[in-house]
Amino acid sequence: MRIETLALADAKLLLTVAEQKAAEIGRAVNIAVVDAGGHLMAHVRMDGAWFGTTDLAINKAFTARAFQMPTEALGRYAQPGAEAYGIQHSNNGRVVIFAGGFPVEHDGASIGAIGVAGGIGDEDAVIAGAALAAFARHRKEHDRGAS
Amino acid sequence: MRIETLALADAKLLLTVAEQKAAEIGRAVNIAVVDAGGHLMAHVRMDGAWFGTTDLAINKAFTARAFQMPTEALGRYAQPGAEAYGIQHSNNGRVVIFAGGFPVEHDGASIGAIGVAGGIGDEDAVIAGAALAAFARHRKEHDRGAS
Amino acid sequence: MRIETLALADAKLLLTVAEQKAAEIGRAVNIAVVDAGGHLMAHVRMDGAWFGTTDLAINKAFTARAFQMPTEALGRYAQPGAEAYGIQHSNNGRVVIFAGGFPVEHDGASIGAIGVAGGIGDEDAVIAGAALAAFARHRKEHDRGAS
Amino acid sequence: MRIETLALADAKLLLTVAEQKAAEIGRAVNIAVVDAGGHLMAHVRMDGAWFGTTDLAINKAFTARAFQMPTEALGRYAQPGAEAYGIQHSNNGRVVIFAGGFPVEHDGASIGAIGVAGGIGDEDAVIAGAALAAFARHRKEHDRGAS
Repeated sequence: MRIETLALADAKLLLTVAEQKAAEIGRAVNIAVVDAGGHLMAHVRMDGAWFGTTDLAINKAFTARAFQMPTEALGRYAQPGAEAYGIQHSNNGRVVIFAGGFPVEHDGASIGAIGVAGGIGDEDAVIAGAALAAFARHRKEHDRGAS
Repeated sequence: MRIETLALADAKLLLTVAEQKAAEIGRAVNIAVVDAGGHLMAHVRMDGAWFGTTDLAINKAFTARAFQMPTEALGRYAQPGAEAYGIQHSNNGRVVIFAGGFPVEHDGASIGAIGVAGGIGDEDAVIAGAALAAFARHRKEHDRGAS
Repeated sequence: MRIETLALADAKLLLTVAEQKAAEIGRAVNIAVVDAGGHLMAHVRMDGAWFGTTDLAINKAFTARAFQMPTEALGRYAQPGAEAYGIQHSNNGRVVIFAGGFPVEHDGASIGAIGVAGGIGDEDAVIAGAALAAFARHRKEHDRGAS
Repeated sequence: MRIETLALADAKLLLTVAEQKAAEIGRAVNIAVVDAGGHLMAHVRMDGAWFGTTDLAINKAFTARAFQMPTEALGRYAQPGAEAYGIQHSNNGRVVIFAGGFPVEHDGASIGAIGVAGGIGDEDAVIAGAALAAFARHRKEHDRGAS
């Protein structure tokens, strides 16, 4: 079977737009993109971003791809008393359960993910959202051109 | 680009003052200092301090540098239901989310950190606070002398 | 004290030139750049590069910075019977002892490092060498402009 | 039963003398001292010493105490084909099998250890040797005074 996955050109588009949006709102962050296999494709740490958040950006992207949902959604299941409490200890400690990781989808398939870390939750979503919107526009144009 | 970092002489000043303050209040602790890269520069474990807290002092300092805030502040974000719940599992288990780690700052930049472990939270803050105050006085005199 | 470190713009220059050189010789690789603290600044995995080599590129860069020498040189000390046999097990398994990691230097100081993984040893050196040469030219022009 | 172990004052003497000797021969190193339990008591990383060798200094001291012999001696048993090949993978990866770790002894008992890392093998031995000699003189004077 064939699967769809991000290519490096896609990852660069996502990184570029996310970095621009982060600069625009004045927040230095880490941004990471993973492919359909959950593996790191590209990463940028903006000057001034905390180095402790590099690991988080990479693993937010991993988590969003591995569980095919935003990390914030997974986080709701991972609270004490909730149905997946403890899931954060699986996968060799790579599961991040707070906001900032988002699947990248195309035609209903999860083809990669983006992770943003270093801002507060809302800012991470704004930064990743700008990147995802730019990617969706780009794919729509590309698909139209290809048809 | 050029960044500021602690030198070993600075780390020794921080350790010496912290150890004196700890002795003064009758508490045997571990004290660790890291540089701008989060790497251990110097460490002392006072006679009688628990050896299980050595790792904590080193990693409190690492955490305070990696996230550019006191570990106690990070700990508030890391509680169940809070926005960074689970951050304690990142960075290969080196993130400590309770009191005792403090960034060392100069001219608004984070240039290293100190971690104190072995007392109760309040004591750690008193011990580290004495060291940070002595360092700030020292830098002020130095900067005045240099200008 | 003040130290020199790579900025993100430097890391991007290194990545871009390395990727161009890799494309030119027809080899898909991972490229990673770390700062003076050994922390990941930016990374690219070219389409078709093995995902198992991402970790190697990042840790080759870490190793070259942590020990201030090319990973291939460290590898000679790490052979059975040589004076640092076993160094590959230190630093939580992050030490890589074969070719592909190179310090980035400026005015005699180690200010970061680049790691290339995915090709054979000689190709990694050619790819990283092109990036380091471009960076050196860029710094020379910059330093001349600043003086 | 009573055991003898280093006190912090002893560790500081060892560190101070080792640092002086390292400065005298112009080599920036990491120096670590552990107690009879193998636990870190005090550590110093001299300005300019590679941060990758901090872990090595601490674990050389651990290893010398854990196996009650210089790490270089242990290293001879740990070569491929030798009788303890693979011992370097025991103890959670903390065993260092090259020169630089030395037990601290008193009255035939192993009461701690010192680890030096960052120089070449011979230099590490010279640096640690100066510290051990100073400690032995100090204990001899102390024992004479106490009798």
